[in-house]
Amino acid sequence: MRWETLRNKFLRDLEKELLSGKVDEEIVRLLEIINSSEDFFTTSSCSGRIVLIDVPENGDKKRAKVLKKWHREISVEEIASSIRELSFNWILWFSSQQPIIDVSCKSLEGAIDLIKIGVASGFKDSCIKSISENRVVVEIRTSEKLYSPIGYGGRVLIGESELELLVRSANLIQRRGKNRLRRLTTSTEKYIKERERTER
Amino acid sequence: MRWETLRNKFLRDLEKELLSGKVDEEIVRLLEIINSSEDFFTTSSCSGRIVLIDVPENGDKKRAKVLKKWHREISVEEIASSIRELSFNWILWFSSQQPIIDVSCKSLEGAIDLIKIGVASGFKDSCIKSISENRVVVEIRTSEKLYSPIGYGGRVLIGESELELLVRSANLIQRRGKNRLRRLTTSTEKYIKERERTER
Repeated sequence: MRWETLRNKFLRDLEKELLSGKVDEEIVRLLEIINSSEDFFTTSSCSGRIVLIDVPENGDKKRAKVLKKWHREISVEEIASSIRELSFNWILWFSSQQPIIDVSCKSLEGAIDLIKIGVASGFKDSCIKSISENRVVVEIRTSEKLYSPIGYGGRVLIGESELELLVRSANLIQRRGKNRLRRLTTSTEKYIKERERTER
Repeated sequence: MRWETLRNKFLRDLEKELLSGKVDEEIVRLLEIINSSEDFFTTSSCSGRIVLIDVPENGDKKRAKVLKKWHREISVEEIASSIRELSFNWILWFSSQQPIIDVSCKSLEGAIDLIKIGVASGFKDSCIKSISENRVVVEIRTSEKLYSPIGYGGRVLIGESELELLVRSANLIQRRGKNRLRRLTTSTEKYIKERERTER
């Protein structure tokens, strides 16, 4: 598929998702900035989230089931009541994850620029995922996360003080993620503008 | 620095580390295979590990201190006695991490081949970290891990049943990691041999 055809397809998909409110608000501005350049388009993204997941005992992520998610900081009460209400079959994991953005780039140079901007914004693990005939796929990300098993056999195994520590640590990761996202948005905007200016 | 000069430098460094026993045994064979080709060299690696880390409350990893590590599965008794003996200042994290291997490649084609082999061996997040004049750096890795805060204010906050669940989950991650490493070693050997055959 040609670059323009592929780009238009993904931009139309994003348009639909934006209309249905499926895209995290805090990342919309960044997506708009990236997609404003004809040399880039975004394919998937997350602004960071806290989740409760039911994962099979053999660790098979494909069969894992997200039971509850929040794209923001949470309170101990919220998570405690969620844990009380939901039921799980395998191992219950509590996780706090950083923002992640997949960007398709027309050129290798553009991809390398984005990685540098990502790393400078705190997304230390930004990298090129794949290179094919029609595009270079960059993933902007960092490996910082919390990922902890907290329940087994239908029973939650942690007490109140451990739950408080988990929530505090999970919230800190969300705060750090949102800060990185803001820095990334500012730097990317500057880069895209500069790029357009020099291209004219 | 020229490719050959850089490669020789890193091979000499690895030689020293091998002699001092600093390289995890289970990954040595893979490193030898990769380094046998003049188009590649390894710069750093880990065969996967379980660790206890003391991390500042603001999440600053640079100041974090590894208190104890194992490059293998562990028993509940081992970790329980370690936790009893050691002291920590900030937040005590328990983590199980997958193998990771950084490889410098002479060509972009070689880098793309290695990523495909990595992904096919279960290292789903393998990618290109950087591209510079004299080399392409590939990281073979997967994001699967356990990373859980378990202590605060000098006190461990988890009970016995939670510790058992953590150890079981951590050990499963190590087993999955070693399996991936074996698959990667076999596939890489086949690839390097085939590459040499066609180059002749």
